[in-house]
Amino acid sequence: MTEREAQQTPVPVVAVVLAAGFGTRFGPDNPKQLVSVGGKPIVCWSIEAFERCERVTDIVVVVNEKVRGTVEELIEQAGYAKVRVVIDGGAERVDSTAAALSMLAEAGIPDDAKILIHDAVRPFVAQSAIDGSIDALDEFQAATVAFASTDTVLLTEDLGDRKVVRSVPDRPNTFRAQTPQSFRFATIRRAYELASADPDFHPTDDTRVVVDYMPDVPVAIVSGAETNMKITTMEDIPVAERIAADLTHHMTKEEARARMHALLSGAAAQMAR
Amino acid sequence: MTEREAQQTPVPVVAVVLAAGFGTRFGPDNPKQLVSVGGKPIVCWSIEAFERCERVTDIVVVVNEKVRGTVEELIEQAGYAKVRVVIDGGAERVDSTAAALSMLAEAGIPDDAKILIHDAVRPFVAQSAIDGSIDALDEFQAATVAFASTDTVLLTEDLGDRKVVRSVPDRPNTFRAQTPQSFRFATIRRAYELASADPDFHPTDDTRVVVDYMPDVPVAIVSGAETNMKITTMEDIPVAERIAADLTHHMTKEEARARMHALLSGAAAQMAR
Repeated sequence: MTEREAQQTPVPVVAVVLAAGFGTRFGPDNPKQLVSVGGKPIVCWSIEAFERCERVTDIVVVVNEKVRGTVEELIEQAGYAKVRVVIDGGAERVDSTAAALSMLAEAGIPDDAKILIHDAVRPFVAQSAIDGSIDALDEFQAATVAFASTDTVLLTEDLGDRKVVRSVPDRPNTFRAQTPQSFRFATIRRAYELASADPDFHPTDDTRVVVDYMPDVPVAIVSGAETNMKITTMEDIPVAERIAADLTHHMTKEEARARMHALLSGAAAQMAR
Repeated sequence: MTEREAQQTPVPVVAVVLAAGFGTRFGPDNPKQLVSVGGKPIVCWSIEAFERCERVTDIVVVVNEKVRGTVEELIEQAGYAKVRVVIDGGAERVDSTAAALSMLAEAGIPDDAKILIHDAVRPFVAQSAIDGSIDALDEFQAATVAFASTDTVLLTEDLGDRKVVRSVPDRPNTFRAQTPQSFRFATIRRAYELASADPDFHPTDDTRVVVDYMPDVPVAIVSGAETNMKITTMEDIPVAERIAADLTHHMTKEEARARMHALLSGAAAQMAR
């Protein structure tokens, strides 16, 4: 054990997978988190990303009453061993996060636990993004996966009924937020406490809760990827299918290599006899 | 003629198609503006978008010496009637725009001419975006096509060797800049004059020249589309091919409908005899 490792007591690493959206853009009876891409429901891709990462200790899945039955069934069928609980979310994203935080507090999770909050509709999050988030929390109280914007970003304001450009930030300092967004437990709890006292509070993003209500806490950027896309409309499905095919093909090649390796080792062992 | 129309003297509407990029990301011998998608070089898609719009009176194409021969040949083969001149651009995007503006000044173009500056590597610009840009210049001195960001945008700053979030602007006020970016001639000329006096001047965007150097001139947002994508790497090609196929299919259907209509009219005329 290195000195650095010895200094770090292992803390719980909890993934909160937000799957409570009603996906109205897909139609009320077709919640987007249940749509299949690459032959697998979107919510399963997301849960599996955290199930697969050895450093993640627990998974909390947040649902709504409409999808609860199906999601619970999918979890049981797949045998996801780290999913501890499936809880009900709220009307807005922020209510779902708040519900998860209350549950974790009641469960007595330590203040320094690492909480990774992930949108279920980003099914293709890379292991490197999850690892990067867990690592960033060794140095920072908060971190978010984000992808450098290739387009120039324009900040606008209203002029009559028209949007006009207010400013053009330097491109190297513009990122598109993705998830997971990660926090030490005490930090995100405190930010939500402060925010809940504000009646004008309607963030669409957990990072923003920290940035706006705890401005002294820097939120680190963790490298995301174009493939860590958010599936919001049916038009996103063809792109998603392509990414799913690439990933499946890649995994299949890896598996084939592993199998070949096992076979060759076996053969070598037999020949050595 | 309505009163409104009578008040407006028709002014030249000049499209400047910037095709001077060296496309190093595609490899030095494979300039991206010459790559074919849907069986047509990218630069031709872009020129045709303006050739097709009846309100555009003139087209200026900006190239580099490496692609000049090919681009001139493509223009001649296709018989683009509005292309007045093919000029040499500069090392950076801003130099290419400056070259076009000097040429237009020498050509004695009026101050109130409408100039639409377009990146050749955005081949699928919609007619509605071009029309919207021309219309916006009736009310504003400057306008840019832009697409509302579906992702939360993060503005960052450096903290040591790490990027951290500085602020999270409201999502409805964050747009991704596209092209064309459009200006009354006198306005963009003046902005470039002011900017050229600043040694730190390195904008990647014409809109920014106006926003930064003529802060009192509002730049209007014109609705863009996801399909108005910028082709920057080989990875963009599959998506571009899909859009090209959709557009070609759509145009073919329109043509088929027009032909059917002509046939039916002919048949009706014959029957009426």
